[in-house]
Amino acid sequence: MKVIHTADWHLGKILNGKTLLDDQIYILKCFIEEMKNEQPDVIVVAGDLYDTSYPSKGAIQLLESTINTLNLEMGIPLIMISGNHDSKERLNYGSKWFEKSGMHIRTKLVDIDKPISFGEIDFYTLPFATINEMQHFFDDDSLETHQQCINKALSHISKAIDKDKVNVLVGHLTVQGGLRSDSERALTIGTVESVEASSFQQFDRVMLGHLHHPFSIDSDFINYSGSLLQYSFSESNQPKGYRIMEIKDNKIKDKFIPIQPLRQLEVIEGDYEEAIQEKLDIKNKENYLHFKLKHMSHVSDPMVHLKQIYPNTLALTNQTFDFNTPIHRSNYEIQKLDDETIIKNFYQSITDESLTSTQSQKVDRVLNDLLEGGMQ
Amino acid sequence: MKVIHTADWHLGKILNGKTLLDDQIYILKCFIEEMKNEQPDVIVVAGDLYDTSYPSKGAIQLLESTINTLNLEMGIPLIMISGNHDSKERLNYGSKWFEKSGMHIRTKLVDIDKPISFGEIDFYTLPFATINEMQHFFDDDSLETHQQCINKALSHISKAIDKDKVNVLVGHLTVQGGLRSDSERALTIGTVESVEASSFQQFDRVMLGHLHHPFSIDSDFINYSGSLLQYSFSESNQPKGYRIMEIKDNKIKDKFIPIQPLRQLEVIEGDYEEAIQEKLDIKNKENYLHFKLKHMSHVSDPMVHLKQIYPNTLALTNQTFDFNTPIHRSNYEIQKLDDETIIKNFYQSITDESLTSTQSQKVDRVLNDLLEGGMQ
Repeated sequence: MKVIHTADWHLGKILNGKTLLDDQIYILKCFIEEMKNEQPDVIVVAGDLYDTSYPSKGAIQLLESTINTLNLEMGIPLIMISGNHDSKERLNYGSKWFEKSGMHIRTKLVDIDKPISFGEIDFYTLPFATINEMQHFFDDDSLETHQQCINKALSHISKAIDKDKVNVLVGHLTVQGGLRSDSERALTIGTVESVEASSFQQFDRVMLGHLHHPFSIDSDFINYSGSLLQYSFSESNQPKGYRIMEIKDNKIKDKFIPIQPLRQLEVIEGDYEEAIQEKLDIKNKENYLHFKLKHMSHVSDPMVHLKQIYPNTLALTNQTFDFNTPIHRSNYEIQKLDDETIIKNFYQSITDESLTSTQSQKVDRVLNDLLEGGMQ
Repeated sequence: MKVIHTADWHLGKILNGKTLLDDQIYILKCFIEEMKNEQPDVIVVAGDLYDTSYPSKGAIQLLESTINTLNLEMGIPLIMISGNHDSKERLNYGSKWFEKSGMHIRTKLVDIDKPISFGEIDFYTLPFATINEMQHFFDDDSLETHQQCINKALSHISKAIDKDKVNVLVGHLTVQGGLRSDSERALTIGTVESVEASSFQQFDRVMLGHLHHPFSIDSDFINYSGSLLQYSFSESNQPKGYRIMEIKDNKIKDKFIPIQPLRQLEVIEGDYEEAIQEKLDIKNKENYLHFKLKHMSHVSDPMVHLKQIYPNTLALTNQTFDFNTPIHRSNYEIQKLDDETIIKNFYQSITDESLTSTQSQKVDRVLNDLLEGGMQ
């Protein structure tokens, strides 16, 4: 029994104004080629198929053509769940017809205790859900943290578990201690989003999406596949690919297989002149580059000059300045803050007062509403 | 052989700020009930399933649940084409899986000469396409009018036609002389959109969408089903429903079956005081109403007062003014103009000059681009 584990495709992703669709088309072609060799029994995609809840035409067409090849042409069953970037309703469209061809799209909490069985394996699916959605589904207002929600969901699932089977959970969440990257959007507002690894002990394996590093977590039964591509410069040293889980003679083995992308993300540090004279050590001039350069204050439009040599330059940081001045420090630090803290700090810096607890709650409510899917 | 013909569902339609989703849910429930009695061999939906190329979650869910009941639960085959309001790519999503259950969604010109056969009938599908799309598909820049495009498409289809079958065309277009309503968006910019009825003589029947009146055209072989609901006050006297085409002993019969909606659209004329005193003749106070009232200049917020009595009032026109004053005349007339003329008149009134032919062409190009589906 061979199961492929992938996640976080983020189709339609735009990085610093540049659409990555060509890179995604390329890497999914590679993935399909790999699958022709692997001949898996099932492919699991653990959420965030799309980057936005309103995917573009190009993203929709890429998803459709990929699953068409894998499912209809190659006859491989698929299990896909929705992540925090997907619109449940849009991803779920057509799922009853898809299921007839062995393509299972799971977006609803109502299905979490209904396993999808392949041979000796029962796959349980836990699509991303906000705390509000969990409260509503379980009719339980006492659920206030992601940990409580997941515990509730897992105890709900445990009633259905057949201990004679190999039980696999497919989920989209953050496990405590997992390595984070810049391109993962927060799962919760105003509360810790991570869940303890020990929560999942009723499962033989946990196949996760959300964290983009394929080695995000050090566990013998919980794995992230990592994302399809590098989606932020903080991921520029991360390998990308997919995982294979094989069950033979009651033993489960797991390995990560890297795939070479069309272009990688690369961060380049050095002097502006060295960059222009092509003296800096750059793996590939066609890569997506983030330059962090010194001695460029005298140059007007340095980005234009860099792009003439390195066409896929996506970011440029001036490293000449001393980043210890207050303004630069706050600019720099803002990247690391969550939305809630940014709003609170902004309010304080403008009014010299802190948000009251009522105001704080209102901010949380608005942020949570946004988290739950934006537009109607 | 019994074929149901419907079109122009416009799911997600918002009329004067009011979503008609509840009305659409209601009428499609009625339609499903009718289908349980009719037991048709196939249902044809001739375009404009959605009102916009970016349909709302509610609209997507309504389409999915309706076709799920008709196709998967009741086992009725469906043929659906895209209209000028639909996004081809979005409507087409999943069609290869749907086809396995006898649900045929056709959005592409490449399929126009590939009939869908049910018993003795060959259905040819002609989804809406802009002149640019036709030029591109046939690689023929000489196509400049909708008539030329349709002629080209029909002659392409004619090579495939089997004269021993009953040949039916499913299309989304305007036949010359067809009655128009206010809620049909123009199909072409800068050229006549209508097509001569005689163009279709190779077909035994032509089942059309686009015009919203079920008796838009007086022909013994071309029919519009009309829209699912009244979608503008200019349609307030139009019956809405579906058509049945039956073939028995080589004879084709066709009839229109009305369905009663949850609320109708009604235009009410009279004095403001009579309206407030409920002395005007109104079919149903819950209907969507457009009041055209006299003697209300002294009232502040007349709409608020009217809505207290008639909660679904959607429009109010003050009939007291003399509409022969220039400003009112132009306001009034603007409703009847096409986008191109509005832009030309606006330019002229602001600059006192006419658009040059280059400017005119650029305006046409922008309008055509918008017509072809807006956002990427």
